Amino acid sequence: MMQANDPALKSFIPTPSESHFPIQNLPFGVFSNAANPALRVGVAIGDQVLDLAALAESGLLIVSPEVFRQPTLNAFIALGRQTWRSTRASISELLRHDNLKLRDNQALRDKVFVAQDQVTLHLPLEIPGYTDFYSSKEHATNVGSMFRDPANALLPNWLHIPIGYNGRASSVVVSGTPLQRPNGQLKLPDADAPVFGACRKLDFELETGFIIGQPNALGEPIDIANAEQHIFGMVLLNDWSARDLQQWEYVPLGPFNSKSFATSISPWVVTMDALEPFRVASPEQQPQPLPYLQQSGKNGYDINLEVTLTPGEKAQPQTICRTNFKAMYWTMVQQLAHHTVSGCNTRIGDLMGSGTISGNTPDAFGSLLELTWNGKNPLTLADGSQRSFIQDGDEVGMTGWCQGNGYRIGFGVVSGKILPARS
Amino acid sequence: MMQANDPALKSFIPTPSESHFPIQNLPFGVFSNAANPALRVGVAIGDQVLDLAALAESGLLIVSPEVFRQPTLNAFIALGRQTWRSTRASISELLRHDNLKLRDNQALRDKVFVAQDQVTLHLPLEIPGYTDFYSSKEHATNVGSMFRDPANALLPNWLHIPIGYNGRASSVVVSGTPLQRPNGQLKLPDADAPVFGACRKLDFELETGFIIGQPNALGEPIDIANAEQHIFGMVLLNDWSARDLQQWEYVPLGPFNSKSFATSISPWVVTMDALEPFRVASPEQQPQPLPYLQQSGKNGYDINLEVTLTPGEKAQPQTICRTNFKAMYWTMVQQLAHHTVSGCNTRIGDLMGSGTISGNTPDAFGSLLELTWNGKNPLTLADGSQRSFIQDGDEVGMTGWCQGNGYRIGFGVVSGKILPARS
Repeated sequence: MMQANDPALKSFIPTPSESHFPIQNLPFGVFSNAANPALRVGVAIGDQVLDLAALAESGLLIVSPEVFRQPTLNAFIALGRQTWRSTRASISELLRHDNLKLRDNQALRDKVFVAQDQVTLHLPLEIPGYTDFYSSKEHATNVGSMFRDPANALLPNWLHIPIGYNGRASSVVVSGTPLQRPNGQLKLPDADAPVFGACRKLDFELETGFIIGQPNALGEPIDIANAEQHIFGMVLLNDWSARDLQQWEYVPLGPFNSKSFATSISPWVVTMDALEPFRVASPEQQPQPLPYLQQSGKNGYDINLEVTLTPGEKAQPQTICRTNFKAMYWTMVQQLAHHTVSGCNTRIGDLMGSGTISGNTPDAFGSLLELTWNGKNPLTLADGSQRSFIQDGDEVGMTGWCQGNGYRIGFGVVSGKILPARS
Repeated sequence: MMQANDPALKSFIPTPSESHFPIQNLPFGVFSNAANPALRVGVAIGDQVLDLAALAESGLLIVSPEVFRQPTLNAFIALGRQTWRSTRASISELLRHDNLKLRDNQALRDKVFVAQDQVTLHLPLEIPGYTDFYSSKEHATNVGSMFRDPANALLPNWLHIPIGYNGRASSVVVSGTPLQRPNGQLKLPDADAPVFGACRKLDFELETGFIIGQPNALGEPIDIANAEQHIFGMVLLNDWSARDLQQWEYVPLGPFNSKSFATSISPWVVTMDALEPFRVASPEQQPQPLPYLQQSGKNGYDINLEVTLTPGEKAQPQTICRTNFKAMYWTMVQQLAHHTVSGCNTRIGDLMGSGTISGNTPDAFGSLLELTWNGKNPLTLADGSQRSFIQDGDEVGMTGWCQGNGYRIGFGVVSGKILPARS
């Protein structure tokens, strides 16, 4: 295990055991604050942001400050995996409770730390491409049962291919961005023709996403044995979905307007290095996949996931889903090997969504579509109101963390509030 | 009509009547040459490239030379529609046979002109997003007849929605880029399980693409009445397609590996201004589309299109399809209004493919899938060989032009040669 992952490490920045950002995590993001509105790269530690541009300016990092004085992580990521790792190790070293260099230099601390509640977090990446997979067997089974045949819920290709599609990168937004309910075409059950109007079945999809750190060239597939080295880290992802638009538009070329109006991601990118201690075996695959998809070792990750719904300004968030990433049938390395086996190239900052993460119990389903079984069984909230789908003013929050012994490697939150449709 | 479109205009650069690049066209592209390997913006005129960076350095354009010393057109496009138009007008003025300023300054001519056969043409755009539509009724009917039911070939949504999907922007390449045949999963007709291997049904799709010149913000749809102002210009596009991969993978989320291995575009972007004289009414739409898709005026364009296949190094190109863009059922402004009606944002350089352009006679079909009816009726080439789909070593070329009175507004060529699959 890497030194920076040692559970015994402690920082001089206090991190309670439920904090998402102990010294073992050190996720990268992009922030600004009132005192310095320039976007720059930071690392979350406890309730603070460590300003890497300021830290590098002070000569405490090998990487040039210019790399961190950027509005995205892409320039840093482009320096390569060894640099990601050595930078994380250097930061870990500087933040240790027994390292006096930063701890006891108050002037420097004033320069390099900003309280998280004082910063604005920005979209951490320039995202050249966004791909979304469909890799939860439970989710695919639920959808197939609802819209096709419960006895043959999985389509014939599903057990052979980590099914995915190209999403719309332009509309990926950072957590906290409010979103208009989309307008579009819907076809009501008894109607002959579609109508235009606001989506009536607005949904979330609980997902994670991974970020390409090392690209591959056109025509040069990524071998599954090396795929992990191409991944910089992971985020939480809400694949907002307009179910009524989707049902009308999706044949034969897949979802389009029903998804492309917005996708939200969490602001902190948790590195694969920080997640390393939480690797687990992924589910057994039967039938055995084709050789280019055969993996060795543990390629699942034990990440607890929860979704909350907050029905309006004054309400309390209410947990409506609890599940875990480790149940995902197709793994990230399989997704990446499949994506590139045709020769398709990837680029630094590409975002690859997992697909909706659903567990095998009804409280572990990762979308309202599944939680309410397409509206047949509405959820009753604490305030007595019911939800088949998302209402205007609702805020959806997602959180995730790996549970260590006395500490958490957390993702923070991805949240988004739904505003009324444009009239 | 704009002055720059006057059919009577003549340039001191000779342009025979069949040239694609008379003074009435002036398409923009990105080039380099042996003497100056820096990528920069140029305009095609006759058999020459006019180097806009050099021209601007000489003080003959209002736009800063820096804008043209770029590896893509994006910076120029970002200056806005008035600048596209005024720049084209200035260039037109400078190239007129009766304007002595450039014509009679040999030293300047030596600086600003490079013969087209001496340049390398590059991908003209940074393409943040690539969307592909499916807007030819004849094509959708052919595909539906082949794979579903000839009596109900069009899916219920097709006449209501300009169906589209997100493509893979990373693998858009410029004409002339050779491409490996993709590998992937295929399921043979009598097999229970898929196999891995090289695509056996490699196809082209004859398309055009339009380029976003003026973006829209997230949540702010483009009204169809203004949509045209958002379009910078058009290119030819070959949406390479692996039919066997596609058939196995495409349910329920659409084509993925079958398309994302490569898309080729022509190097010269023909402006909407140059195409203006060739507007025609688009086909009548029945049923009438929903109000957000209702258009006024002429939104079709009379663009002749041809596809050639060259079976190997020493062979002659053979024309295998002749059709016209004007038959397209859904127009570009409808595509753009639909794409953004959900609030989806677009960005400068976004590429929007038309979908395969097929006419209503068998020699006007825009893909081998249709021309050979999924291989049932192979084409016999001049050398006696047959083609159901593309073979290794084949080169596919596409060309297009608007026919004026004694001149053509042409797109040049998009071509690509298929290399054997990676083993």
